[in-house]
Amino acid sequence: MASNLRFTEGGSALRYTRYHVKNQASSGAPAPLFPTPIKISFLGGLDEIGKNMTVYEYGGEMVIVDCGMGFPDATMLGVDIVIPDFTYVLKNSQAVSAIFITHAHEDHIGGLTYLLKQISAPVYATKLTIGLIEGKLNEARIPNVDLRDIAPGEVVHTEHFDIEAIHVNHSIPDALAYAISCDDGTIVHTGDFKIDPTPIDGVMTDLARFGAIGNQGVLALLSDSTNAERDGFTPSERTVGESFRNLFLKADKRRIIVATFASNIHRVQQIINVAAEHNRKVALSGRSLENVVEVSSRLGYLTIPDGTLIDLDRIREYPDDQIVLITTGSQGEPMSALARMANSDHRRVSIGPDDYVIISAKPIPGNEKTIGNVINELIKQGAEVVYEQMFDVHVSGHACQEEQKIIIGLTKPDFFIPVHGEVKQLSRHAASARDMGVPRERIIMPANGACISFLARDTAVITDVPAGNVLIDGSGVGDVGNAVLKERQRLSQDGVIVVSVAVDALSGYPSGAPMIETRGFVYMRESGALIDGAYDVVEDVMDGFSRMKRRDTGILADRLRDELIHYIREKTKRTPVIIPIVHEL
Amino acid sequence: MASNLRFTEGGSALRYTRYHVKNQASSGAPAPLFPTPIKISFLGGLDEIGKNMTVYEYGGEMVIVDCGMGFPDATMLGVDIVIPDFTYVLKNSQAVSAIFITHAHEDHIGGLTYLLKQISAPVYATKLTIGLIEGKLNEARIPNVDLRDIAPGEVVHTEHFDIEAIHVNHSIPDALAYAISCDDGTIVHTGDFKIDPTPIDGVMTDLARFGAIGNQGVLALLSDSTNAERDGFTPSERTVGESFRNLFLKADKRRIIVATFASNIHRVQQIINVAAEHNRKVALSGRSLENVVEVSSRLGYLTIPDGTLIDLDRIREYPDDQIVLITTGSQGEPMSALARMANSDHRRVSIGPDDYVIISAKPIPGNEKTIGNVINELIKQGAEVVYEQMFDVHVSGHACQEEQKIIIGLTKPDFFIPVHGEVKQLSRHAASARDMGVPRERIIMPANGACISFLARDTAVITDVPAGNVLIDGSGVGDVGNAVLKERQRLSQDGVIVVSVAVDALSGYPSGAPMIETRGFVYMRESGALIDGAYDVVEDVMDGFSRMKRRDTGILADRLRDELIHYIREKTKRTPVIIPIVHEL
Repeated sequence: MASNLRFTEGGSALRYTRYHVKNQASSGAPAPLFPTPIKISFLGGLDEIGKNMTVYEYGGEMVIVDCGMGFPDATMLGVDIVIPDFTYVLKNSQAVSAIFITHAHEDHIGGLTYLLKQISAPVYATKLTIGLIEGKLNEARIPNVDLRDIAPGEVVHTEHFDIEAIHVNHSIPDALAYAISCDDGTIVHTGDFKIDPTPIDGVMTDLARFGAIGNQGVLALLSDSTNAERDGFTPSERTVGESFRNLFLKADKRRIIVATFASNIHRVQQIINVAAEHNRKVALSGRSLENVVEVSSRLGYLTIPDGTLIDLDRIREYPDDQIVLITTGSQGEPMSALARMANSDHRRVSIGPDDYVIISAKPIPGNEKTIGNVINELIKQGAEVVYEQMFDVHVSGHACQEEQKIIIGLTKPDFFIPVHGEVKQLSRHAASARDMGVPRERIIMPANGACISFLARDTAVITDVPAGNVLIDGSGVGDVGNAVLKERQRLSQDGVIVVSVAVDALSGYPSGAPMIETRGFVYMRESGALIDGAYDVVEDVMDGFSRMKRRDTGILADRLRDELIHYIREKTKRTPVIIPIVHEL
Repeated sequence: MASNLRFTEGGSALRYTRYHVKNQASSGAPAPLFPTPIKISFLGGLDEIGKNMTVYEYGGEMVIVDCGMGFPDATMLGVDIVIPDFTYVLKNSQAVSAIFITHAHEDHIGGLTYLLKQISAPVYATKLTIGLIEGKLNEARIPNVDLRDIAPGEVVHTEHFDIEAIHVNHSIPDALAYAISCDDGTIVHTGDFKIDPTPIDGVMTDLARFGAIGNQGVLALLSDSTNAERDGFTPSERTVGESFRNLFLKADKRRIIVATFASNIHRVQQIINVAAEHNRKVALSGRSLENVVEVSSRLGYLTIPDGTLIDLDRIREYPDDQIVLITTGSQGEPMSALARMANSDHRRVSIGPDDYVIISAKPIPGNEKTIGNVINELIKQGAEVVYEQMFDVHVSGHACQEEQKIIIGLTKPDFFIPVHGEVKQLSRHAASARDMGVPRERIIMPANGACISFLARDTAVITDVPAGNVLIDGSGVGDVGNAVLKERQRLSQDGVIVVSVAVDALSGYPSGAPMIETRGFVYMRESGALIDGAYDVVEDVMDGFSRMKRRDTGILADRLRDELIHYIREKTKRTPVIIPIVHEL
């Protein structure tokens, strides 16, 4: 059933109605149909931040762009990470000719090892991205993956597609957009980007190339919506370096500790540069940071002056004013190096009044409390802490509204598709596109699982493909579903009560005493009367059971549960999970 | 053991070292000792936002200022609210002569019903605050509380104290600061405040009175630190009214829905005023909002033009452009009116493209995701949503740095004590006080449970009083503690496995089959092999047990748990709670 998706006509409200998109405005004849449709399927990254994965199809061939992971939301108790549902790709695994990666952030590569356990295809990315993917593949023990590095400006030719890599600025070096062309049209896929006229590596987002491709005609633009709620421009990464210069002076004789994202290599480079200017040695704390620094300096993305980097064990050999510590944990992650320092739980670093801590990051929505707690603990240890509300210690890696508009203006797409964002960001990005003159009916705001088929330059239909969240918990992939999560939710609220009884199958009389155990409910020791009452309830139920004519232990279990739920709710206004067990002897 | 608390000398870092505070700077002789110390004990509100409660003592008399509640943090699973530990007050309940309330927000009055179940004392507050407290007392069925309304400028004389009410601006009308005087000194307690030169009720924070009291000499200032991280001034509440005027024009023919805090009566007044200007009727959705509007209009704090307010059931009788709906849920609370509208779960209001939703609030840290989800769902229903990132639809009720400094400048306190905030806010407020010339050793940054005893105008010592969090879960007060919360945490992560066995006491052989049940772990139906393996583990343990010479069912239970933990961790990398039950028959 082909169906579509469009915006309402009235107001600026957006609506998920499905119908047939046609450019009503065009005065001439409708554009001729393509011989075969160009399809884009969204397996992740819509109505969410993270888990980005997009599939392009033409003439029976599939190429995949990115394969990211997401973090569990508050309802996904106990879940470690979330990856896309690969069903659609696995069903068509013979059709997959290549995987293209835009950059090495987890929300774009974190699902890749799981995918490459199940399908085999060459992976294209820039040198740094390949370097970081290699580490992940080694850790996951996946051998023989065909990794191919490409540089901006290069074009990969597959059976039906020409895929061109375009340089973009982002908060990790070596990020790419892709122009994906087939006989019937070109689609521009920005990946995550910003426009930084003064980036640390000196190379601005290749606006000229976006413009040239736009002049040749772009069927659709898929563009990063992360910062669509922010007006203006994202400041240059270089401004953070200027802040560091000021703050290093303020730190004076104190030790400096800077927390940042491990993958923000340009940030790390700037910290190292300013440290070297101040004759401070640099030490690293945090496994991911050590890994990224190792890979990026080996591959030439990070330049460390000789003798600047020292081992964390050696920081005691230098006075405080000759040390800069770079650390992970800028989001307050409980097991991170910074959190361990804050909680006096770090083996090698203890915090005191001679520490000047700079948190060079902004809380990702949802992390405000955890990072706030880390800041509080650091201050209690005596440190001075500088963070985002106080100083320009961070800039975003994503384009704000004006930058987003520039890309729309350069590419002049027939269709505009905002991606990478929740609906509130996608809809703001859509509003920008309307401001730029993209007709309302040419703006498509799909959800995960949508497959957009372009039938002609002015016609698209939308159908569904399988998509969703696959939850990773421990070594389990997808064995935790909604019912299990709901049980965890209930267990987390009021705990569990187990009642176990043994009955004689013939007589229906209890064998031995019933047993009640609780976890996460109340202290049994301090709630003696409550638990005694529960035993009374159980005994009443057992009495009734022994007098019944047809003795069904299933009915006994149900009754034990029901009566206990009732009793406990009455006494405590709580609804713990009740697990009744009946041994029939 | 008297001990103290001070800041370090070096740098601007603050440190919780305890020692004897003395004004080293004063050149003359030390100030004479008071005949009896003036004590301030903090039972809440420090190193946290919420749960404010302060106890003042002099000559054996106690007065309490505020008795608030807090919300559970992420570790307090299943907990409904948090109140202060009243132990210190209950031990001295005969000494309590009065309770003073600054204003009617939950973080200042939410613990009051729990306190008034246990002690009896007159409660002083302004008329509106009393009105809102009355509702809470009725709901909690606490009769015969001695409520006494006071007006700004009035002084209450207790045995040893003169307590003066001072008008301050805040996000609820009728808020007070208190000047608490005894023979040996005056302490200024700001409560929550801002300085709004153009407030909706026309009366600015009484700066003149703060100044006059300052000129007479202030021993200590306890001042609101909530916004200490923000520089400059908080804008006037009136600016939000101007935004509403613009937004109501933009809404054009659409229905307008405004979500705000129920208690922000000035905000509600402004919405009603602008609605009346546009000939729109106003309806309310949300029980707390209906309650606040009823009380505040009855008491004259809210003026509603005749015929403007209509019942929610009647909104269908008017076209969209003649309706404004005011609703609760501006923090995305799952059961709130706005969340129910967003999730198509509201009995009387369904959202569509003809709705223009204004969220007139800012997310409280920790609520960013929930309110973001509500915004996303509203947009999916077709509504346009205006929120803080997009327009000036909210101002804070708390003073920013410049306002905080004005109060310090007017009161010129001997000691400065930042309150109402986490350490990161308290320390910023302390930094402002240092900038204002308050000597470092006269700035005290206490924690909950601190009791500051002023021995002279230049001398204070700090001791401890009992303080902490009392958790309310269902009808239980304080019966959920750390061990129970830790169990809930573990249950929430990996669920629970129950193994129940029955053994013959004489032979040690199993009676009947062992039984395994799980909740929140995996689907047992889809994990047959895993559960079969668990049964094998149990049978092995039972076999071993029957061969043992000394058969202790406690040992059997331990071994069942240990072997299952080992098996499950091996197979799944998870650590569910294991509950072993052994019936001895």
